[in-house]
Amino acid sequence: MKEFFKEIPVIQYEGETSKNPFAFKYYDPEKEIAGKTMKEHLRFSMSYWHTMTGSGADPFGLATMIRSWDRAASPMDLAEQRVLAAFELMHKLQIPYFCFHDRDIAPEGATLSETNKNLDRIVKIIKTRMTETGIKVLWGTANLFSHPRYVHGAATSCNAEVFAYAAAQVKKALEITFELGGVNYVFWGGREGYDTLLNTNMELELDNLARFLSMALDYAGEIGFKGQYLIEPKPREPTKHQYDFDVAAALGFLRKYGLDRSFKMNIEANHATLAGHSFQHELYFARINGVLGSIDANQGDLLLGWDTDHFPGDIYSAVLALYEVLKNGGLHSGGLNFDAKTRRASFEEADLFHAYITGMDTYARALVIAHSLLQSGELENFVSTRYAGYSEGIGKEIVEQKVGFKELELYTLKHGAVQNSSGQQERLEGILNMYIMAGG
Amino acid sequence: MKEFFKEIPVIQYEGETSKNPFAFKYYDPEKEIAGKTMKEHLRFSMSYWHTMTGSGADPFGLATMIRSWDRAASPMDLAEQRVLAAFELMHKLQIPYFCFHDRDIAPEGATLSETNKNLDRIVKIIKTRMTETGIKVLWGTANLFSHPRYVHGAATSCNAEVFAYAAAQVKKALEITFELGGVNYVFWGGREGYDTLLNTNMELELDNLARFLSMALDYAGEIGFKGQYLIEPKPREPTKHQYDFDVAAALGFLRKYGLDRSFKMNIEANHATLAGHSFQHELYFARINGVLGSIDANQGDLLLGWDTDHFPGDIYSAVLALYEVLKNGGLHSGGLNFDAKTRRASFEEADLFHAYITGMDTYARALVIAHSLLQSGELENFVSTRYAGYSEGIGKEIVEQKVGFKELELYTLKHGAVQNSSGQQERLEGILNMYIMAGG
Amino acid sequence: MKEFFKEIPVIQYEGETSKNPFAFKYYDPEKEIAGKTMKEHLRFSMSYWHTMTGSGADPFGLATMIRSWDRAASPMDLAEQRVLAAFELMHKLQIPYFCFHDRDIAPEGATLSETNKNLDRIVKIIKTRMTETGIKVLWGTANLFSHPRYVHGAATSCNAEVFAYAAAQVKKALEITFELGGVNYVFWGGREGYDTLLNTNMELELDNLARFLSMALDYAGEIGFKGQYLIEPKPREPTKHQYDFDVAAALGFLRKYGLDRSFKMNIEANHATLAGHSFQHELYFARINGVLGSIDANQGDLLLGWDTDHFPGDIYSAVLALYEVLKNGGLHSGGLNFDAKTRRASFEEADLFHAYITGMDTYARALVIAHSLLQSGELENFVSTRYAGYSEGIGKEIVEQKVGFKELELYTLKHGAVQNSSGQQERLEGILNMYIMAGG
Amino acid sequence: MKEFFKEIPVIQYEGETSKNPFAFKYYDPEKEIAGKTMKEHLRFSMSYWHTMTGSGADPFGLATMIRSWDRAASPMDLAEQRVLAAFELMHKLQIPYFCFHDRDIAPEGATLSETNKNLDRIVKIIKTRMTETGIKVLWGTANLFSHPRYVHGAATSCNAEVFAYAAAQVKKALEITFELGGVNYVFWGGREGYDTLLNTNMELELDNLARFLSMALDYAGEIGFKGQYLIEPKPREPTKHQYDFDVAAALGFLRKYGLDRSFKMNIEANHATLAGHSFQHELYFARINGVLGSIDANQGDLLLGWDTDHFPGDIYSAVLALYEVLKNGGLHSGGLNFDAKTRRASFEEADLFHAYITGMDTYARALVIAHSLLQSGELENFVSTRYAGYSEGIGKEIVEQKVGFKELELYTLKHGAVQNSSGQQERLEGILNMYIMAGG
Repeated sequence: MKEFFKEIPVIQYEGETSKNPFAFKYYDPEKEIAGKTMKEHLRFSMSYWHTMTGSGADPFGLATMIRSWDRAASPMDLAEQRVLAAFELMHKLQIPYFCFHDRDIAPEGATLSETNKNLDRIVKIIKTRMTETGIKVLWGTANLFSHPRYVHGAATSCNAEVFAYAAAQVKKALEITFELGGVNYVFWGGREGYDTLLNTNMELELDNLARFLSMALDYAGEIGFKGQYLIEPKPREPTKHQYDFDVAAALGFLRKYGLDRSFKMNIEANHATLAGHSFQHELYFARINGVLGSIDANQGDLLLGWDTDHFPGDIYSAVLALYEVLKNGGLHSGGLNFDAKTRRASFEEADLFHAYITGMDTYARALVIAHSLLQSGELENFVSTRYAGYSEGIGKEIVEQKVGFKELELYTLKHGAVQNSSGQQERLEGILNMYIMAGG
Repeated sequence: MKEFFKEIPVIQYEGETSKNPFAFKYYDPEKEIAGKTMKEHLRFSMSYWHTMTGSGADPFGLATMIRSWDRAASPMDLAEQRVLAAFELMHKLQIPYFCFHDRDIAPEGATLSETNKNLDRIVKIIKTRMTETGIKVLWGTANLFSHPRYVHGAATSCNAEVFAYAAAQVKKALEITFELGGVNYVFWGGREGYDTLLNTNMELELDNLARFLSMALDYAGEIGFKGQYLIEPKPREPTKHQYDFDVAAALGFLRKYGLDRSFKMNIEANHATLAGHSFQHELYFARINGVLGSIDANQGDLLLGWDTDHFPGDIYSAVLALYEVLKNGGLHSGGLNFDAKTRRASFEEADLFHAYITGMDTYARALVIAHSLLQSGELENFVSTRYAGYSEGIGKEIVEQKVGFKELELYTLKHGAVQNSSGQQERLEGILNMYIMAGG
Repeated sequence: MKEFFKEIPVIQYEGETSKNPFAFKYYDPEKEIAGKTMKEHLRFSMSYWHTMTGSGADPFGLATMIRSWDRAASPMDLAEQRVLAAFELMHKLQIPYFCFHDRDIAPEGATLSETNKNLDRIVKIIKTRMTETGIKVLWGTANLFSHPRYVHGAATSCNAEVFAYAAAQVKKALEITFELGGVNYVFWGGREGYDTLLNTNMELELDNLARFLSMALDYAGEIGFKGQYLIEPKPREPTKHQYDFDVAAALGFLRKYGLDRSFKMNIEANHATLAGHSFQHELYFARINGVLGSIDANQGDLLLGWDTDHFPGDIYSAVLALYEVLKNGGLHSGGLNFDAKTRRASFEEADLFHAYITGMDTYARALVIAHSLLQSGELENFVSTRYAGYSEGIGKEIVEQKVGFKELELYTLKHGAVQNSSGQQERLEGILNMYIMAGG
Repeated sequence: MKEFFKEIPVIQYEGETSKNPFAFKYYDPEKEIAGKTMKEHLRFSMSYWHTMTGSGADPFGLATMIRSWDRAASPMDLAEQRVLAAFELMHKLQIPYFCFHDRDIAPEGATLSETNKNLDRIVKIIKTRMTETGIKVLWGTANLFSHPRYVHGAATSCNAEVFAYAAAQVKKALEITFELGGVNYVFWGGREGYDTLLNTNMELELDNLARFLSMALDYAGEIGFKGQYLIEPKPREPTKHQYDFDVAAALGFLRKYGLDRSFKMNIEANHATLAGHSFQHELYFARINGVLGSIDANQGDLLLGWDTDHFPGDIYSAVLALYEVLKNGGLHSGGLNFDAKTRRASFEEADLFHAYITGMDTYARALVIAHSLLQSGELENFVSTRYAGYSEGIGKEIVEQKVGFKELELYTLKHGAVQNSSGQQERLEGILNMYIMAGG
């Protein structure tokens, strides 16, 4: 079989003193932490689109990426070459999962039937490679944003024929995700939003979005798909306002239409910060609402106002994210996907490896730190003590709803001035730093 | 009776050619538009706090405002002087409503009982002035953020005694709002949020917030308050993250706890933009969810990252806001409050008049424009045509949920490529501009 | 000659009551204001790239624009078709100027010689059309950002061969701008900045940028180009940090290298706000430093963090911009370029006309308003009075530098407390609104 | 002598395994790195204002801080108590320097003479404590922003009497800084900017600012002050636009008036990010322009739009900052000031210690890491190789300005297509992470 990355070996764990750029310094897949291996905890996933189809083009410039598989003779040949390259890359990086859009893996044909046939042919090849390698699908999804037909949205298009087309496309995407054993199916509403309210019927668009999701659930149930359904929030870009703005907005929407028991969230670090939240906030908020589903770990640059999809290197963000994951009892059927692209100026194939190694090592290190911090109880005990007043006396009665305003007024008139204690933010930040600096 | 603003007459409508700074150029209270007077449409309200107690202090400097009533002999004397000045100002500006926090009108005493007695005394004076002038209360609320006891929040404090104190305080605030005939009661969670997740139990805090709101509803019902309950969203400031981030977040929260039928939203222009939304977006989203309750019209500076509470002068923002209000069938029992302060450098009493005149004229002009635009049908007809596909054929079947993914796939396979039309954003922006430039 | 926009007539001024979407409501080219026609004041310019080559592609989706000239047989045929369409469009919109990058008008060939030959061929065609129509070149420039060779910058590339290539390209761009009678030449450093400091020698890059500009001046002088040289500031995008961040940064840079007498600024509304400044600020700051050169009038969306290049519709921004232009004694050899693109969803050819009409009408209306406001002296007189203290007494001595700290201390010890007057921001905002609402 | 922080011992270095909250884990003052002790490298400084006078008040709430010295009998007594507490705190934290505004240390009196007498009295006490403890003044400055007289600015006030007052105040502040042996004097233009351009003469204001700085230099020279003069850039807050927006703007301004040889920059992390730059960017840009003077290390929250003045805990920011400092050959007469305040909810005195310990430990750790990284040459060598083309051949000729556009065109026509190499950002980010995780 053709080898694409000939110069690059299978990346092995060599420990933190290694200077080998093609080695893991922290990610040791079989290392056990709290009864599970790193591999089981982290469930790393490759994003097929950025990794295999990313070109480096941006709004101001052309493609820069140099890819050996790009010398293919036809779109379908290219699609096949990409499968081979993808599995070689995942194998060499020890990545056990991948995520894909329908249009990442096979090109659109002249008609929907032809497109679906293209998909079938490539899915077969992928399935073979999956069997041979043991690599699995974390989630599948449909690309409902790149083609000009989706210029006004898909499920929220003003054009009913576009809604129909999107339905047909998601039907097929669900089928192939099921066929490939995907354990999740993701809905990212790439163009489900608006560019201007002047031409928009937001009410109908939101109702239609709910109708679309219901139809998807119905059909997936019919074919026997047992995976998890995930909504991926993002506040803006490409549209001015995306309906799934953040976890709170997506959850509020699902609750309105009685869909909140059927979906969890696929939370992306970069989307969180674009919405004005920390990554931890979105994960924490999802966790306490029972909807922490899966993670896109790519980070943004907080000084830039667009989605940069950097490979994650910030240890703070990673530690606090995994702290929430650990408190969630793990990622369950979700995973940790790198919805990340190498910078436009990192256009060589080796950069793909550097980037994944940096991202995987960051999260491996973060796992050890987050686990130690949680085990130590240093934060948890502080928080427990801080809220202890709700476990006894008047606090307990509040929580158990045994008192109302009248009783609380009487209580206050009797007890007078309250006494607060410091929130000790700086001390806690110092503790977090100590765990990070100590590496766990 | 002492006159505070001796140099300033009652502000009269003089029309747009007037050069008199102490005259309305557009606000003509009794002018009829669509069967209601401007006064009835706009329901202008003075914010007691900014107007009567604002000092011009900021994080970098001391008070600048020169106020004749500040020469009072004691806190209670000051409170009385403010009542007189407030009613004189409202009278001279022809403002029919006002909004207040409990602590704006009367100073905190040594104990809660004393504080409540202070309130009772001032409420009595206010009531008299209300009767004499016909000026009414738009809404009351409790200040649960200024006193150090609320340093960690009120209903979401880690300290159960603070929850109790806040309950006692809101109990009284509900009583006096009821006593003064207020038609709304507002909850703005000034410190209901967190500064760092490291010391926060967000789950308990959110549950407690819901408990607090339920208790408030119970008690208000008990005393016979029939007004509207309003949540005022804000994304951040003073805390790093406020729980009522935006309308979507507040609504999602209310739905979780089954409270969404009991509350509407008090939407502020400045808070909308701090959350990354246009003012119109928040109003539109509230409207289609049936929760457009009332308005704080003060705008922010989109190049600044904090709450500036400017008096509103942007005609675009005002027109689009009132467009939503008109589509909502009006503000109903809500109103248009100026939760606005004169700039720190606008420290003379005349500036209060300039500021209200600018704000009121902007909204009066905007009302005429919004009404004309709506009447013309130029936007509405465009939107109707754009979504017409959902009123017939496959679109109608989608809306009526008569089809699912399988039928839609068959439809798509049969009908092939879709045809879209331009969204014509630039033309619609040109139309909006024409109505604004023509003044209606 | 082939007609591209058959359905669309020459756009005529019909006045503000016209409902004809293909008419100007405010732009009356020959209308005189203060001794010059609107056409002479505004010097409108078409941006060749967005208008003729824009495709509607964005980072999340493919081209959407439907353009009759796109059915060309070859890249050079396409380039010719575009020339014809461009001049028809400018003729029909009564636009007297255009701006272009070298690569907008002719495709890159296999070698630099071939590319330059392509340019020569198209330049000849353009020149003919210019002669026939009287339409002129406002400015030319070189595209040093789209081709992959410029991935690390052009004049600031880490690769000296890229510096050389860029020099060769700008040499030719200067020649053709000269050949076409362009009155300005623009430097926008599309990739002159960095993506990460980790791999960047900022000192060398900035020195090289200065060297490049010096060489450009030398060569342009040699060929006899007498036009104005313009730097176009932008803070970020595509790079993380662009060296010409804003007017202040560009000016500081030029001063360091003794280049500040040779360049003026091409100021873009959208770039101003991305840098955290109002458009007026950048124009004002340039004006008082003698470097207000030319304008790109396209605006951004302040709630979005990237360059949206909207056609300008905001009357406030336009009035305040032209206020600065009038105080500058006009645009002189600069102009008002629409570096703007129709939204991706405005993909029909008619949208190009709607967009330019909206932009031109906005600025025409703004011109009348700005002129009236300036003539009235309402702002100017307020400002004069406010600073009057510097025209006499101690203030005059300060300005004339006749006093130092010791004299000022003595003065202060003698005179005691100072007396300030209100800045009256709200009243001035009300005055601005009155002029805007009255239309002048 | 009265002891204020009785429960708290002198903070000692105990190493990274210590769990003692009142110990340094990384800051070991006498530890040598590259021939200098940590203490000499870092030159830590206490900010008198935040530490001794900060109250926890914010725009939404009252003071929260509990300070034992606040029980003073009079303003002057309070000022004396603060001196004692300040020196005890510095002693216990092993902080060798402090910074102060004139108004931090002594209260304003009824007249300027009285104010200056107050200053003289406290300066004497401070001087005694300095002699006793060996603690020194890093820099002094004047508070020209808190008092209402500065509502419209100080040197840029529209009121010439305010300019005079500010001059008198800075005269005295220079004298006491000199008296106390301060090695720097800082100009932070707290209100040197504008709130609205509608009422502003920006040209006169900027000219006046330059006049003011010149007068300051003259007077300081006259009294024999030999310290360094520092400008502290900040983009906005409290004003809408501060003239010293960022290092580039401040430098451009100084160059215009021929002042650039006389001032260096005091760069604050929080101000850098508010201006849209990384902290490293501002330091790097200052370094290569020869104006890296001193550091305010307090960081901001990039998701918040205002100056939060957090104690610095981000190891990335600290490492990259010290990397620039090391490349600068150290801080020279500058220092590392914590212009930081404990959070409003961290209101106990112990929090002051936690906060300084967190900040000092972060920078101590960062010093070790930055030094190792620089020593390793891993980044430096990459950068050298990347730009090697400018040391030979055509690149060298460019740098030496031996070639112009014509020669470079010939070169390009001859050599054809250029070859670029990857910028390897992800690999370099991985290297940075390895050094951070390894702790050096």
